Amino acid sequence: MLEDKNKERTPLESMGEFGLIDHLTKGFKPVQESTVKGIGDDAAVLDFKDHKTVVSTDLLVEGVHFNLAYMPLKHLGYKSIMVNLSDIYAMNAEATQVTVSIAVSNRFPLEALEEFYEGVAMAAKIYGVDVVGGDTTSSTKGMLISVTAIGKAREEDVVYRSGAKEHDLLVVTGDLGGAYLGLQVLERENEVFKVNPNHQPDLEPYSYIVERQLKPEARKDIIALLKELEVKPTSMIDVSDGLSSEILHLCKESGVGCHLYEDKIPLDPMVISTCEEFGLDSTLVAMSGGEDYELLFTIDQKEFPKIKGNPNLTVVGHMTADKEAAYLISRNDAQIPITAQGWNSFAKT
Amino acid sequence: MLEDKNKERTPLESMGEFGLIDHLTKGFKPVQESTVKGIGDDAAVLDFKDHKTVVSTDLLVEGVHFNLAYMPLKHLGYKSIMVNLSDIYAMNAEATQVTVSIAVSNRFPLEALEEFYEGVAMAAKIYGVDVVGGDTTSSTKGMLISVTAIGKAREEDVVYRSGAKEHDLLVVTGDLGGAYLGLQVLERENEVFKVNPNHQPDLEPYSYIVERQLKPEARKDIIALLKELEVKPTSMIDVSDGLSSEILHLCKESGVGCHLYEDKIPLDPMVISTCEEFGLDSTLVAMSGGEDYELLFTIDQKEFPKIKGNPNLTVVGHMTADKEAAYLISRNDAQIPITAQGWNSFAKT
Repeated sequence: MLEDKNKERTPLESMGEFGLIDHLTKGFKPVQESTVKGIGDDAAVLDFKDHKTVVSTDLLVEGVHFNLAYMPLKHLGYKSIMVNLSDIYAMNAEATQVTVSIAVSNRFPLEALEEFYEGVAMAAKIYGVDVVGGDTTSSTKGMLISVTAIGKAREEDVVYRSGAKEHDLLVVTGDLGGAYLGLQVLERENEVFKVNPNHQPDLEPYSYIVERQLKPEARKDIIALLKELEVKPTSMIDVSDGLSSEILHLCKESGVGCHLYEDKIPLDPMVISTCEEFGLDSTLVAMSGGEDYELLFTIDQKEFPKIKGNPNLTVVGHMTADKEAAYLISRNDAQIPITAQGWNSFAKT
Repeated sequence: MLEDKNKERTPLESMGEFGLIDHLTKGFKPVQESTVKGIGDDAAVLDFKDHKTVVSTDLLVEGVHFNLAYMPLKHLGYKSIMVNLSDIYAMNAEATQVTVSIAVSNRFPLEALEEFYEGVAMAAKIYGVDVVGGDTTSSTKGMLISVTAIGKAREEDVVYRSGAKEHDLLVVTGDLGGAYLGLQVLERENEVFKVNPNHQPDLEPYSYIVERQLKPEARKDIIALLKELEVKPTSMIDVSDGLSSEILHLCKESGVGCHLYEDKIPLDPMVISTCEEFGLDSTLVAMSGGEDYELLFTIDQKEFPKIKGNPNLTVVGHMTADKEAAYLISRNDAQIPITAQGWNSFAKT
């Protein structure tokens, strides 16, 4: 699916470690004022003056977090950056720099890494972050990516997971469940392709959810929107593991409970129709699917008029006094305890 | 060698992703004033006020950078931190925080990760850095470690690779080649052990070089010493890939050449005797061995009286005007071009 057999392929061992890093990162020119020195020394040098520095790191493993059978390398590069920027935005901070490290086995030619870095470069450009460091090495099997993102925020702007109070409104951005369903579609097509290599996948009817999986966008726009609306959330987290898991994090860290209303959970029509096609419960998909990279936050009730009617923001519930007890209020008014169905990467499957 | 079969072993999948991170990092209490928020949110929050922030990242792969047959996990945790702190010190900066991410396959029980994190904690404590983030995930094969280190320095103190001038003296700390020879000894013992599992390795005669390999120390002390002596290097790099490779980096970045004197290269007596035993050339070992994590720097000649006679510092050569031409001046006065024998992790072996 990804390999064009006619392309020339340059074996990595012909590059040498230093030549490879130079080659892959030569297009990365700093745009952030805070980047004093980027790639090319023992460490990057950053200057944040009177701002707080925010740091987040993630590890992505082939066969665990992504499958190269249907994840184009350019998209993978893009998504690796999004995953981390999303964590920075979830602090109500501005992302400013990233470091990108990659380990690959010898089966990857230079052109594969170039494609990956193209995606990295595209993400860096669109989101205005500088790639200031990284490491390129070999692995004994498969591909592994480690990204660290750095950002800045004024002290008074930083939003933690721990500030939610009783009666605060629970708000989520965009819609949920799409990324998970996109993965189901891609996996189904891949199974068909394995049986019949002449099969031409028609992903067109699923374009939105496939894009949610392959090319997610971190919600930088929401951080700008909140500033514009003059709303500072009391707590915030990004939806990487699924709504259930993120709600439990906010509840635990803030020492509050939560009522989440099933009928308020924002779902795209394509999510609903694809759930029907796959025989999946759309609420379960939104609660446990993960990888949507939306933001979940709480605001004081008095802020409600400021966000009311904004198409990017949906109030899905409110926080309660019951420490660490979170409930889904179902369409038929049943009160169902929320349990962590967040993705457990060590579970046997 | 590493596994005590009587120990209880807890499978990782019984922990869950969040439980695992909480469990492994619960002992990490911030000591750095700049750590506003460490582990437990989407990102760490750091406050460097008027200092420059310095960031470095490294990826360590089982079977490429380490072999668990003779690398105890606690030492591996310690060494993972050292590798990164060394890069921070090579900027003449103070290391303040690290993030540690780890991917392991299901063959590793919880106790293995605990051991690894014990080494991380020990390194963090001794070097006064805070562990402020990380990611714990599964891999399809083996163990992979990604560490990002963060540090700070006053603007006027930062030392780049690019500041060396003609006539500057080239100085190296400690002694070289030990880590590489330690690895040779460990690999030999491991081969014997594979043939005869009852073989009891006697590493005592090689204690110094084995320790150089298993438990290297980053030269934080040298940064303090340079401040005390009021010496600011004109350029600096850490010796991770071998003296040749590091000299070429300084020459390339600074646009100068170099004369390195073979008879000045500092070698421990155990390095010399082990080289004889293995039939290796000690100069080649020092030049290409790598992993010594010493510092290599240049100073203006007028600073020489300040460092003269210091047992930690050896002048091994001087910089020349010839752009990018570096020579080893051998014991018999031959002028041999220095080529990068730095470790190439993509080379077929």
